[in-house]
Amino acid sequence: MDSPFSDRIADVPESFIREILKVAVDPTIISFAGGLPSRDLFPVEGIKNACSKVLDEHGQDVLQYSNTEGYEALRQLISDRYRDKQGLDVPIKNILITNGSQQGLDLLGKTLLNEGDDVVIEEPGYLGAIQAFSVYRARFNSVPVSEEGLDIERLKGVMLSRKPKLLYTVPNFQNPSGISYSEENRIAVAEELKGTSTFLVQDDPYGDLRFAGVEKTSFKKLIPDNTVVLGSFSKIVVPSFRLGWIVAPDALIEKMVIAKQAADLHTNYFSQRVIHQFLLDNDIDSHIADITEVYGRQRAAMIKAIEAHFPKEVTITHPEGGMFLWGMLPDGISSMKLFDIAIKDKVAFVPGHPFYVNRDEVNTFRLNFSSVDEATIETGIARLGRAITQLLAG
Amino acid sequence: MDSPFSDRIADVPESFIREILKVAVDPTIISFAGGLPSRDLFPVEGIKNACSKVLDEHGQDVLQYSNTEGYEALRQLISDRYRDKQGLDVPIKNILITNGSQQGLDLLGKTLLNEGDDVVIEEPGYLGAIQAFSVYRARFNSVPVSEEGLDIERLKGVMLSRKPKLLYTVPNFQNPSGISYSEENRIAVAEELKGTSTFLVQDDPYGDLRFAGVEKTSFKKLIPDNTVVLGSFSKIVVPSFRLGWIVAPDALIEKMVIAKQAADLHTNYFSQRVIHQFLLDNDIDSHIADITEVYGRQRAAMIKAIEAHFPKEVTITHPEGGMFLWGMLPDGISSMKLFDIAIKDKVAFVPGHPFYVNRDEVNTFRLNFSSVDEATIETGIARLGRAITQLLAG
Repeated sequence: MDSPFSDRIADVPESFIREILKVAVDPTIISFAGGLPSRDLFPVEGIKNACSKVLDEHGQDVLQYSNTEGYEALRQLISDRYRDKQGLDVPIKNILITNGSQQGLDLLGKTLLNEGDDVVIEEPGYLGAIQAFSVYRARFNSVPVSEEGLDIERLKGVMLSRKPKLLYTVPNFQNPSGISYSEENRIAVAEELKGTSTFLVQDDPYGDLRFAGVEKTSFKKLIPDNTVVLGSFSKIVVPSFRLGWIVAPDALIEKMVIAKQAADLHTNYFSQRVIHQFLLDNDIDSHIADITEVYGRQRAAMIKAIEAHFPKEVTITHPEGGMFLWGMLPDGISSMKLFDIAIKDKVAFVPGHPFYVNRDEVNTFRLNFSSVDEATIETGIARLGRAITQLLAG
Repeated sequence: MDSPFSDRIADVPESFIREILKVAVDPTIISFAGGLPSRDLFPVEGIKNACSKVLDEHGQDVLQYSNTEGYEALRQLISDRYRDKQGLDVPIKNILITNGSQQGLDLLGKTLLNEGDDVVIEEPGYLGAIQAFSVYRARFNSVPVSEEGLDIERLKGVMLSRKPKLLYTVPNFQNPSGISYSEENRIAVAEELKGTSTFLVQDDPYGDLRFAGVEKTSFKKLIPDNTVVLGSFSKIVVPSFRLGWIVAPDALIEKMVIAKQAADLHTNYFSQRVIHQFLLDNDIDSHIADITEVYGRQRAAMIKAIEAHFPKEVTITHPEGGMFLWGMLPDGISSMKLFDIAIKDKVAFVPGHPFYVNRDEVNTFRLNFSSVDEATIETGIARLGRAITQLLAG
C-alpha cells in the first residue's frame, strides 16, 4: 500500500536533540545538551501573583476565547519596549502573538513557501527552523557563520543565483554557536537584501541576554521593509507559557493572521493576560539583569574550565550573551564519536551535525551554560576534557 | 511583481464569522452569532486555586519547557475518561495535547494531505475545518447532513470515485447545525469506511454537552483503525487555555508529534498542569451537569420563542446538546439578506453560506444559544422573527 502520509511530513528531520535529551535523563549525567533557561531564575511568586490578580479582577474575561492577533495591551507593551530599547517604531498592527517563536517559523513557511522555494539558512543553524521550513519543502541554501557573522561572499552568490524567499538568521548569540553578527556584517547583509523581495528573519530569543559587549543594530532598523523579527518571553520570563511574537510588514502580517487562525484560532489568552500583568507589576529589566548576571558567570566558569581541561587543539566561540557556546575539534575528528565516549563518563552535549543540512559527521559541538551551575560546569567540563583527550589519543 | 506569498495561503477562506463578530461588538446588539461558551459558568475560583497549587508545589517545574506529546498525567486522565464514559481503550501513547482542537485539524492536514487530495466534509460543515484543510490545498467533497446524519448514498459515491484521505465529521451536536448522527447512521458510515485507508475525523468538542436523548456510539468503537478523535477542554472547562487533544492510531500519531514539534514545540505546559490540577480537585461531571442544565434551558427558551415569533415557513433543527441550532428559510430566500435587515433591528446571527464550500447565497442560518440568557433570547428571537416576516413580505 502507498504511504497514507503527506510527502511533506516525510521530509522533516527528526529532532536528534530530543533523542539526546532522552539519553541525558539519567540524573548522574551532567548535561550541557539542553537548551533550557535556568529554572532557578523563574519568577514563581510574580507569576502566581499575576495569575491571582487577573482572575480576581477579570475572571470571566481572561478565561474566554479571544482574538487571533493577541491581547492588544500586551502587544502595546512589546511595541513600547521596541521603541524604548532599540528606537524602533513597531505599530501593534504589525505584531502577532504566537505559541512561542517556533510557531512564527511555521506561519512564515505557511504563508511564504511553495514547494522548492529557496531559503537561506545559517551554517551551523537552528534545527527548529530547518524543521519548520522542511514541512513546506523548502530548498535549503547554507551560508556559513563565523564570529563576524554571515559569510557575505557566499550570501551574494545565493542571492544572485537563487532569489531566496527567506534568509533565516539569529544575529544575536546564535543557537547553536553563540556568535553575534558584527555591526559591519549587519550592514553588509542588509545591503545585499535591500530592494529585493527576500525577507530576512531575525529570530531574536536571546537578544536581551547580553552580559558583555554592546548592543548591535536590529535589521528592522537597517531594512525595515524586508525584516521579520521573532521575539519570545521564554528566555526572559518563562518558557512553559509558549508566548512569542512576530513582527512583520503589513501585507505579510495580514496573511499570517489568516494562517494563525486556521492553525489554532489564537494563542492561550489566559497566559497572555498573566504575562501582561506580570510585566506591569515587575521590573522586567531588573529581572533580565539577574538572568544575565548568572549566565555571564556560568559562561565565564565554562570558558575557564575549558582553558584548564581541554586540549589546546580544541577551539571555542566566546559569546557575549545567550545560552550556548560552540566547540571545534581538530579537522576530521567526529563530535559524535566524542559523544559516545563522553556519555560513558556521564557528561552530555549536542554533537554538531543536526545543525547542518545534509551532513553526518562534523567536528563541532554545542555546549549549554544557562542551566548548569558553576561547580557542576567545572566537574562536567573536566570529564569532557578527559573524553576529548582520549578521543584525540585514539 | 509576483506575489511573494505561497499559493496555499491564497486558498484559505477568510473567516466571515470574524467579520460578523466585528459587527456584533455594538453592545446594544443581541448576538446569536458567536460560538462562545457561557462565561457565567467558568470555574474562576477553581482555576485560581489550581494555579496557586501548582505554583506552590511545583513552581519551577510547571514554568519550564516540556515535551511535545503533552503532560503525561493529563493524558492519563483523558484516557481514563474515555474508558469510564465510553468504554474506549485509548492508551496515552495515542493521545497528543494540542492548542485547541483547531490545531488537531492543522496537524491532520499537515501529516496527511498532499495538494489535491480529497477530503469529505459535511454540508453544512465547520468553517474552521474548511480553513485548516484549505491551507493544504485539499479538494473538498461535500456530503449533506440531516437530522439523521450523513447522506449515505452521497458518501458511497464519494468513497468510490475519490478514495478520500479524510472524512471530517462532527457527529455530536454539530457546528453549525446542532444535528447528531443516529446510531444507524453511524453504523452505515462505519461500514463504508471499514477496510479503506480513509481516516474518519470525529471532531467532538460538544460531545459532553448533552441535555436530552441518549449517548451514541463513538466511531472510535466502530472503526478504531480508521478513526481520529479530537477533544477539547474549551467547552467543559475554559476556552482561553486553548487545550485540546487528538487521539489517533500509532503510525499517524507519531507523524503528528513530529509535525507538532515543528509547529510550536509543545502546548502551553503551565495551562496543562493547571487543568490537570483542576480536574483532580473538582468534580468535572458535576460541572458539566451545571453547564448542560443551563444550555438545555436556553435551548428550550429559544425553541419556544421561535415557535411564538417565527413565521411557520421557517424550520429549525432540535439539538439534543451543544451550543447551536440551525434555521432554514423557505427556498430561494437569502439568509444574508435577512442578516442585513436583522442587524438594523439589533440582532445578529451567522448566515449559512460560510458553512458551505463554494456557495454564496443560501437560505440557512446558525443561532447560538449557549452565551445568551433566556430573557435576552426571547427579546432577540422576537426581533429576528420581525426581520424574517419583513423579508418574506418583501
